[in-house]
Amino acid sequence: MPTPAVQDLYPADVAHCYGCGRLNASGLRIRSMWDGDETSARLTPRAEHTAIPGFVYGGLVASLIDCHGTGSAALAAWRAAGVEPSADAGAPPRFVTAALHVDYLRPTPLGPELEARGTIIEVGARKVVVDVAVYALGEACARGRVIAVRMPESMLRGASPA
Amino acid sequence: MPTPAVQDLYPADVAHCYGCGRLNASGLRIRSMWDGDETSARLTPRAEHTAIPGFVYGGLVASLIDCHGTGSAALAAWRAAGVEPSADAGAPPRFVTAALHVDYLRPTPLGPELEARGTIIEVGARKVVVDVAVYALGEACARGRVIAVRMPESMLRGASPA
Repeated sequence: MPTPAVQDLYPADVAHCYGCGRLNASGLRIRSMWDGDETSARLTPRAEHTAIPGFVYGGLVASLIDCHGTGSAALAAWRAAGVEPSADAGAPPRFVTAALHVDYLRPTPLGPELEARGTIIEVGARKVVVDVAVYALGEACARGRVIAVRMPESMLRGASPA
Repeated sequence: MPTPAVQDLYPADVAHCYGCGRLNASGLRIRSMWDGDETSARLTPRAEHTAIPGFVYGGLVASLIDCHGTGSAALAAWRAAGVEPSADAGAPPRFVTAALHVDYLRPTPLGPELEARGTIIEVGARKVVVDVAVYALGEACARGRVIAVRMPESMLRGASPA
């Protein structure tokens, strides 16, 4: 049985990210979960997420790598502390992206489901590094790296109701 | 008087990019134009483009840098050939992103118009390098680099009607 997605466990007041917030009705609702020692997220782009006809727009691929990277960072920080995602585990640690790099290897076909697979490179107290590859039809279309850092207090304060 | 946006001049069959296609009704419609020796694009994110409440989602910032980078690459390749954008200039050269890097400097406030400013770093026959900074309320929130390459023939063939 797959483990739950980490984004399913974010508190409701910080679950509105366009990329991965379960409460953003317009968003992509990317869901990141463990698959052994790697992490996985699956997304089928919408017809409007085109670059030129037939191919996925690069910003969507970057968004998938970005949000799956920060989700994977939360999973990795939790696992480093001995915690596996579950409804009883409390709120996951929350990360933001400090730096994002994407190499586009080949045009990504529009239509098939994409899978982003994350490899945890480094887990520090404040910083987690995740490599993410994006596959379509079994072929890697993009490879990226996310440097994720703990969400600053100033952002969490910004998220509180005024 | 500002020069036209390069995306306004793309042929209709390749003007559907979610990020910068003028014919993508759901998209961001990013428009890149010269401003002296730099390039500029302005975008006001929608309410749903949130990260956590009050801040812009990082994938949108990456998308803005990506599409403004390839648009700036087209402008730069044209200028290197002595062509300025106008309705009489024909179809612009078309670029795709080979690599994208973004450093997120501070949380980007959601609400104000963003400006992406491009600096042309290198213009080669096949490759153009553009640095892009994203500003909100006069402060740089992100800095990135786009390695843009001429669009492969295989993508243009994919764009032709079947």
